[in-house]
Amino acid sequence: MFVQIFTTGGTLDKVYFDALSQYQIGEPMVAELLQQARVGFDYAVESLVKKDSLELDDADRKLIHAKVAACPAQHILITHGTDTMTVTAATLADIQDKVIVLTGAMQPALFRDSDALFNLGLAIGALNTCQPGVYIAMSGKVFAADGVTKNRLAGRFEDI
Amino acid sequence: MFVQIFTTGGTLDKVYFDALSQYQIGEPMVAELLQQARVGFDYAVESLVKKDSLELDDADRKLIHAKVAACPAQHILITHGTDTMTVTAATLADIQDKVIVLTGAMQPALFRDSDALFNLGLAIGALNTCQPGVYIAMSGKVFAADGVTKNRLAGRFEDI
Amino acid sequence: MFVQIFTTGGTLDKVYFDALSQYQIGEPMVAELLQQARVGFDYAVESLVKKDSLELDDADRKLIHAKVAACPAQHILITHGTDTMTVTAATLADIQDKVIVLTGAMQPALFRDSDALFNLGLAIGALNTCQPGVYIAMSGKVFAADGVTKNRLAGRFEDI
Amino acid sequence: MFVQIFTTGGTLDKVYFDALSQYQIGEPMVAELLQQARVGFDYAVESLVKKDSLELDDADRKLIHAKVAACPAQHILITHGTDTMTVTAATLADIQDKVIVLTGAMQPALFRDSDALFNLGLAIGALNTCQPGVYIAMSGKVFAADGVTKNRLAGRFEDI
Repeated sequence: MFVQIFTTGGTLDKVYFDALSQYQIGEPMVAELLQQARVGFDYAVESLVKKDSLELDDADRKLIHAKVAACPAQHILITHGTDTMTVTAATLADIQDKVIVLTGAMQPALFRDSDALFNLGLAIGALNTCQPGVYIAMSGKVFAADGVTKNRLAGRFEDI
Repeated sequence: MFVQIFTTGGTLDKVYFDALSQYQIGEPMVAELLQQARVGFDYAVESLVKKDSLELDDADRKLIHAKVAACPAQHILITHGTDTMTVTAATLADIQDKVIVLTGAMQPALFRDSDALFNLGLAIGALNTCQPGVYIAMSGKVFAADGVTKNRLAGRFEDI
Repeated sequence: MFVQIFTTGGTLDKVYFDALSQYQIGEPMVAELLQQARVGFDYAVESLVKKDSLELDDADRKLIHAKVAACPAQHILITHGTDTMTVTAATLADIQDKVIVLTGAMQPALFRDSDALFNLGLAIGALNTCQPGVYIAMSGKVFAADGVTKNRLAGRFEDI
Repeated sequence: MFVQIFTTGGTLDKVYFDALSQYQIGEPMVAELLQQARVGFDYAVESLVKKDSLELDDADRKLIHAKVAACPAQHILITHGTDTMTVTAATLADIQDKVIVLTGAMQPALFRDSDALFNLGLAIGALNTCQPGVYIAMSGKVFAADGVTKNRLAGRFEDI
């Protein structure tokens, strides 16, 4: 299995800049996390956008769609902010013959107590085993992209 | 999805006892890790054995088999030391109609740089999506239990 | 040695609230950090303010001064945002017969890579050994409160 | 302040080797920890021995003494296993005109919950402020080297 990873920002990649007293999207964390995971498959990482997902616009989603559609790999992982993950997933529904899994994090990967590493494992588990289609791997579950919603108050993804 | 989790020890649960200047198998870490993962499914944890997997014997494996076979849940996660994970997995091959996934860690879950949280995510990803059977989720891959071996030198699970 | 700890917020206590997609000052982290440090002295923690130190005003500093002055303990630790740590320290200069040490963090204590735990150790080291006076313990150094400035660009406290 | 750091092994530097299913003393962690601490002073690190302190012998202690005595720096930090830290400290008592601080850890620095980073801060705090002499910085306290003992059962250093 070769996995093409596209990163788009989101909480998973948030860092803290003391000089500005604020948080920003930093460099993608995914390669560092996969190193910690000691994975045995090959992968490539390409950063498409670095945004909080509330700020992703149509142009960003067109870019993501174009990159996924043009990519020769059959297994695609997209790291994404959680607030509009389902919106982006919906735009990818027409892409055939690829297993596409989106994941992200409720707490930045740099936090001691982050869910990022687990979610990445969950997504890779889905990539290993799912039929072609678009999936969201969050909250310990692998959802069909059109069957899931984020319950923001509960901090959890749930079946629609 | 309800997941019955059986723990058997292994590196994942290793702690350091200063009073003895040595490492031992501690209490199961899995519930704490699933809390960090903010999972949305229900589960129960039962500790069957607390051993380095090199020390598991036939009686231990009989116990594990009996517990899995008798368990009403259809989704079973077993945390296990890596050195004999494939041996235990082989003894479970006759159990029908359950998705059984074994996972563990190359570095204790208490380590900053552990693969434990990722591996747990990988195993849960497999439980979400696999057909009944026995699987090993390690090294970023979901293997059929009879198609995998641990390459101890490389520190990695590989296809046979 | 008994140490009275007053917390005022700052980066050290910053957490991430997904429901708001932003960072805020959370509950004081100091007790949890001292537990990790396995310290053998007694202490009490009182939260006075929960603010980014750029937002501390005169009323906050009057409160901090009153609390320190009225406190019967001889050893006082104040956790504080870094941007105006020297300002608050200056207002405490008239308090006699107490060892007062201010510290904080450049990265939230909840981050894997935070300096918070080290800085707390540094401050406790100073409390163990310093004569009465007001000190700032940051960047691996124990400064007299009137001899230090924060170099924001370098992310470091330096001698004036 | 320039700090010469000598490392001798101990729990602080313990790592886990899966290939041997056991823990061993690894490379010194101190430079990585000081980087995390974002310290502003200069230092050099020299590894003298890599042993559990129960295994240090007279030759090792002679080497440590010789290195400290010959070192031009006035501020010396020694990382050391906790079980015989007081023994090594006693052998250094004749060295004049240097501030010598020994520290270590009850849990390996690689553990999420380690006291190593705090203890290092504590030791650096003592180096900043102490008069020449030999000190042990552990359990949140700075002890004169001849006034302290390890209470192994309690996992704590205490006044004699």
